[in-house]
Amino acid sequence: MIAVIKNSATADQIEHLVDWLKEQSLDVHISKGADYTVLGLVGDTTKIDIDLLNNLAIVETAKRVSEPFKQCNRKFHPEDTVIDVGGVKVGGGNFCLIAGPCSIESEEQIIEVAKAVKKAGATMLRGGAFKPRTSPYDFQGLKADGLELLLEAKKVTGMPIVTEIMNPNHLPLFEEVDVIQVGARNMQNFELLKELGKTNKTILLKRGLANTIKEFLMSAEYIMSEGNSNIILCERGIRTYETYTRNTMDISAIPVLQELTHLPVIADPSHATGKSRLVLPMAMASAAAGADGLMIEVHNDPAKALCDGAQSLTPEEFAGVVNKVNDVRKVIL
Amino acid sequence: MIAVIKNSATADQIEHLVDWLKEQSLDVHISKGADYTVLGLVGDTTKIDIDLLNNLAIVETAKRVSEPFKQCNRKFHPEDTVIDVGGVKVGGGNFCLIAGPCSIESEEQIIEVAKAVKKAGATMLRGGAFKPRTSPYDFQGLKADGLELLLEAKKVTGMPIVTEIMNPNHLPLFEEVDVIQVGARNMQNFELLKELGKTNKTILLKRGLANTIKEFLMSAEYIMSEGNSNIILCERGIRTYETYTRNTMDISAIPVLQELTHLPVIADPSHATGKSRLVLPMAMASAAAGADGLMIEVHNDPAKALCDGAQSLTPEEFAGVVNKVNDVRKVIL
Amino acid sequence: MIAVIKNSATADQIEHLVDWLKEQSLDVHISKGADYTVLGLVGDTTKIDIDLLNNLAIVETAKRVSEPFKQCNRKFHPEDTVIDVGGVKVGGGNFCLIAGPCSIESEEQIIEVAKAVKKAGATMLRGGAFKPRTSPYDFQGLKADGLELLLEAKKVTGMPIVTEIMNPNHLPLFEEVDVIQVGARNMQNFELLKELGKTNKTILLKRGLANTIKEFLMSAEYIMSEGNSNIILCERGIRTYETYTRNTMDISAIPVLQELTHLPVIADPSHATGKSRLVLPMAMASAAAGADGLMIEVHNDPAKALCDGAQSLTPEEFAGVVNKVNDVRKVIL
Amino acid sequence: MIAVIKNSATADQIEHLVDWLKEQSLDVHISKGADYTVLGLVGDTTKIDIDLLNNLAIVETAKRVSEPFKQCNRKFHPEDTVIDVGGVKVGGGNFCLIAGPCSIESEEQIIEVAKAVKKAGATMLRGGAFKPRTSPYDFQGLKADGLELLLEAKKVTGMPIVTEIMNPNHLPLFEEVDVIQVGARNMQNFELLKELGKTNKTILLKRGLANTIKEFLMSAEYIMSEGNSNIILCERGIRTYETYTRNTMDISAIPVLQELTHLPVIADPSHATGKSRLVLPMAMASAAAGADGLMIEVHNDPAKALCDGAQSLTPEEFAGVVNKVNDVRKVIL
Repeated sequence: MIAVIKNSATADQIEHLVDWLKEQSLDVHISKGADYTVLGLVGDTTKIDIDLLNNLAIVETAKRVSEPFKQCNRKFHPEDTVIDVGGVKVGGGNFCLIAGPCSIESEEQIIEVAKAVKKAGATMLRGGAFKPRTSPYDFQGLKADGLELLLEAKKVTGMPIVTEIMNPNHLPLFEEVDVIQVGARNMQNFELLKELGKTNKTILLKRGLANTIKEFLMSAEYIMSEGNSNIILCERGIRTYETYTRNTMDISAIPVLQELTHLPVIADPSHATGKSRLVLPMAMASAAAGADGLMIEVHNDPAKALCDGAQSLTPEEFAGVVNKVNDVRKVIL
Repeated sequence: MIAVIKNSATADQIEHLVDWLKEQSLDVHISKGADYTVLGLVGDTTKIDIDLLNNLAIVETAKRVSEPFKQCNRKFHPEDTVIDVGGVKVGGGNFCLIAGPCSIESEEQIIEVAKAVKKAGATMLRGGAFKPRTSPYDFQGLKADGLELLLEAKKVTGMPIVTEIMNPNHLPLFEEVDVIQVGARNMQNFELLKELGKTNKTILLKRGLANTIKEFLMSAEYIMSEGNSNIILCERGIRTYETYTRNTMDISAIPVLQELTHLPVIADPSHATGKSRLVLPMAMASAAAGADGLMIEVHNDPAKALCDGAQSLTPEEFAGVVNKVNDVRKVIL
Repeated sequence: MIAVIKNSATADQIEHLVDWLKEQSLDVHISKGADYTVLGLVGDTTKIDIDLLNNLAIVETAKRVSEPFKQCNRKFHPEDTVIDVGGVKVGGGNFCLIAGPCSIESEEQIIEVAKAVKKAGATMLRGGAFKPRTSPYDFQGLKADGLELLLEAKKVTGMPIVTEIMNPNHLPLFEEVDVIQVGARNMQNFELLKELGKTNKTILLKRGLANTIKEFLMSAEYIMSEGNSNIILCERGIRTYETYTRNTMDISAIPVLQELTHLPVIADPSHATGKSRLVLPMAMASAAAGADGLMIEVHNDPAKALCDGAQSLTPEEFAGVVNKVNDVRKVIL
Repeated sequence: MIAVIKNSATADQIEHLVDWLKEQSLDVHISKGADYTVLGLVGDTTKIDIDLLNNLAIVETAKRVSEPFKQCNRKFHPEDTVIDVGGVKVGGGNFCLIAGPCSIESEEQIIEVAKAVKKAGATMLRGGAFKPRTSPYDFQGLKADGLELLLEAKKVTGMPIVTEIMNPNHLPLFEEVDVIQVGARNMQNFELLKELGKTNKTILLKRGLANTIKEFLMSAEYIMSEGNSNIILCERGIRTYETYTRNTMDISAIPVLQELTHLPVIADPSHATGKSRLVLPMAMASAAAGADGLMIEVHNDPAKALCDGAQSLTPEEFAGVVNKVNDVRKVIL
């Protein structure tokens, strides 16, 4: 960490600040320039509030030099992490295709979709049992019953399954689930992240609606700091002023994340755009930008899906996306 | 809900859609115009996914006419809700002043600040025991021990206390807490909201970092739908592209919320701006815009606060804010 | 346009509004429902301020049904527009590759870069002569002298040239320029757009920093309404809260624009990201999403470029991008 | 400017960079720490592209220490600038009240509104003759004829007038105009700013839709760098994800700007919110936050204004705002 001290600061003021920094167990290197003095702070600077430093009258500016994320940082772990999800590899050149309905509605529906997406090339099945909805009056998912149906679909198709958790107290219900999803709204639900960090499940962590790339990595760090490093990151669009699409998909976050972390990074064009006709181009774009996989909503009858139907593809449309994406993948490799 | 159908739609297509809408137990009124057909949907439209409708090929546009929030809606409850917090009234012309440190650090600190803010005019004491931090390596608060110290301060000063909850499983620890705060990052932690809805505690609900006013009200609705209507809403700044202040304080949200809901609306200029020298002008602006109260960070030694110190006032500065704000309040009334 | 009238409105109030709407030369169709009355407004509704309608006490909501852009609207002109720029076709399946330095610095520099990018596959040469800079103290370009050098490079290489205009009074200097660029900051400089609409030059219109897709199309409409329909639209990133990249590239705007308009849509990954190492993945993503071309900054000595050097590629790196992008294009077609 | 060099950099690489920096006429002070090396750059660093430095492989981070705005910077001009507009003082404790219609529509209208707002306490009259509209098909103002009518209203009431310019070529028409407004869309129309900098007119510069406070000041700097320092800054709302209000009014920008610059700072609650019923609370908030004045839309018949009517007050409502704001001003002083 570096603090640039204003020229107007008195020797006494600087000394007072340096003393306090040393009390925080930091080494302080002082470089006196013609126009300002630079303090270099070495040691465990995580305890220092940078906003506080920046707010001090004598400080022109303070800046962290080192990145606050450690375990997920590629600097300290240069090789790609490859996660094995029930035999399906993710990361390090292994591309995953997660598909399925937004909500699980019935046994017939989830089994039918599961078979169809498997045939089309999906490697994992997704389906929502616990649904975070903006309104308490909207359909909240079939909950535990939905999980049962999803497990049935897993048994029938042999595909690993992905489904969202909203409450750490529900963990016992997720014992047979292969990948536990943390939704955008819970990306900074630190209590949930810490509980998931104590499991050895693969966690699919979605980027929050308005979270920076660094905050996203810090949330992965929460899970890793508890011992679980089976994490797949997922870009799913951020909130901007543009209203034509539901969110603005930040495709550039894919290569940026891959530069900063060794964890696999996938993309969800369905939620990012909210429009089924944009899923193909944005799936292509994600793959072309180097994503390690895709998560796509597929429904057997999009017009009647209970939620998020606007962004669902039919199994036939999904098969078309898979073919095109595989062609793009060949160019990338 | 209204759906405008394109002129290019065939009679068959319209009939197919109308049939499906009727299956969803809705009454459908059809008005055929020269250039488009308007379907008026009456009944419980909450089950209808508006994005799905908007995505249908024959639909030009679909729009909800009625507001999705019910219990917190001023239309159905025109009088201001007045909440009684241990004898301190909030809302309906009763202005509350909540003050205290960001984090509880020691018995000496919290008692000293509590006495100082009480003397300066605060009506409630705030202090963080469980702290949501972006990094797992940052100070996370004194947790249960911090709550003990806060309860001690309550006993000494007689002031009602406000503190944040992050996990519904911690609720038993909050039995003596007067106001339970839900932080910005948990505004859409629906599982937490539902648990708090089952208590009769006053809930201080902070607006999420990038949540709309309508989403904010829907989160209040989650609490109310479980039976608890003791809710204070708090504007605390939203995330924008501007980086000079930590967030952009949306002062206009104060009168807008008061128009839409009967719940009290307070403002937190400390977190909104992240700079102590902006607390006075923004506290003034909030009061002038009609806020029902303020929440302000006060620390006995701002330069050494363990977190968020940049935005803390000294007790003397806080007393100055209280005096000025009270003068503004007289103009408003 | 549709206006939904509240049930609380009196017959008199509705009549008063209908009368005023008729005075504006509109036909008004009234559909009375059980819960609201819908007014369908037919005719030239462009004169009606929708915010005004929405603000009226008796209006629940008002909404435009038809899109405000006409001449650039694909509905009225379903085939792709193909623009011929000095023999280089753009749009309708013709992919253009515009490359060159941010600023023209010297004859040697621009000629060297021009030759290098031509060899690497560029079809047009870009170079800034008039530079919009945030600070009046920053390098503003070589201006008229820069244009001379760019024309020299055109003569030497035979490539059509693209350069930015900032002032309609400079138009005489642009006589030999093939494509005139309107930068993001001038996207809503309507006086400039109108002047360019009176020429028959090809206009490269960049999306404004925080402009919606609809506003972008309305700016194209300004140029077309004056008679010039030789317009290439360019997505170049929008301003969001994320600071890791200079802007957030809105890749989804590419297919959305192509759906709404018949004009060609290209992408500028250099300005969008501000980082040279992100140009390759974002160029790939743009091509995969269906862009009609790319504009990429190339400099013979990136480390010493006077401006925007951080986002420039070397000619060798650019050649690598061209090869990869051409492979992606084969998948798309 | 400071550049922090990574520990992995070789002595050769550092020397190469230092040599290049010296070629740019900078003095370079090198401080070697245990974990990084800090280069302090002294001299005219405006020519250095900070993004370029940040992008170099050996640079961990680069940061400007000094602010890029000079002439408008309060550091170099601590006293408030007081501008005299035809006898009306603005800034340094002098509060101005600018009122009038969005568009000038007729002689009767502008004279009537002018008299009414003068009686209610306005000190300047505003009215739009040249109107920037998103659509070329929307009413663009009465242009030169509108200016004539505004000058007539000036003659009748004696009030200084404020109106917007969109094209530097129109300057001759503005000879009798007291304050020339630069609208939000033209805040970075640098050619226009430079032309206005050559006049001695007072310029009312509105903040751009998505511009930072620093960019706002740099635009003022463009005008000042040409010799004109009669500038009034105006906060008018920024573009965010929130759609309930037309923009999000950044009230905190008022005290921040006053801290950074000596120029007067006023606020426009009409355009910021787009809703007439929010003008009173936001005018109050602006005054309470310390604004040097207000600009408010007033129309004699809000329901029939040709544009922006939704945000206009009647003269009676405006008089109410003036009274309340004056009371708040007394508390501030």
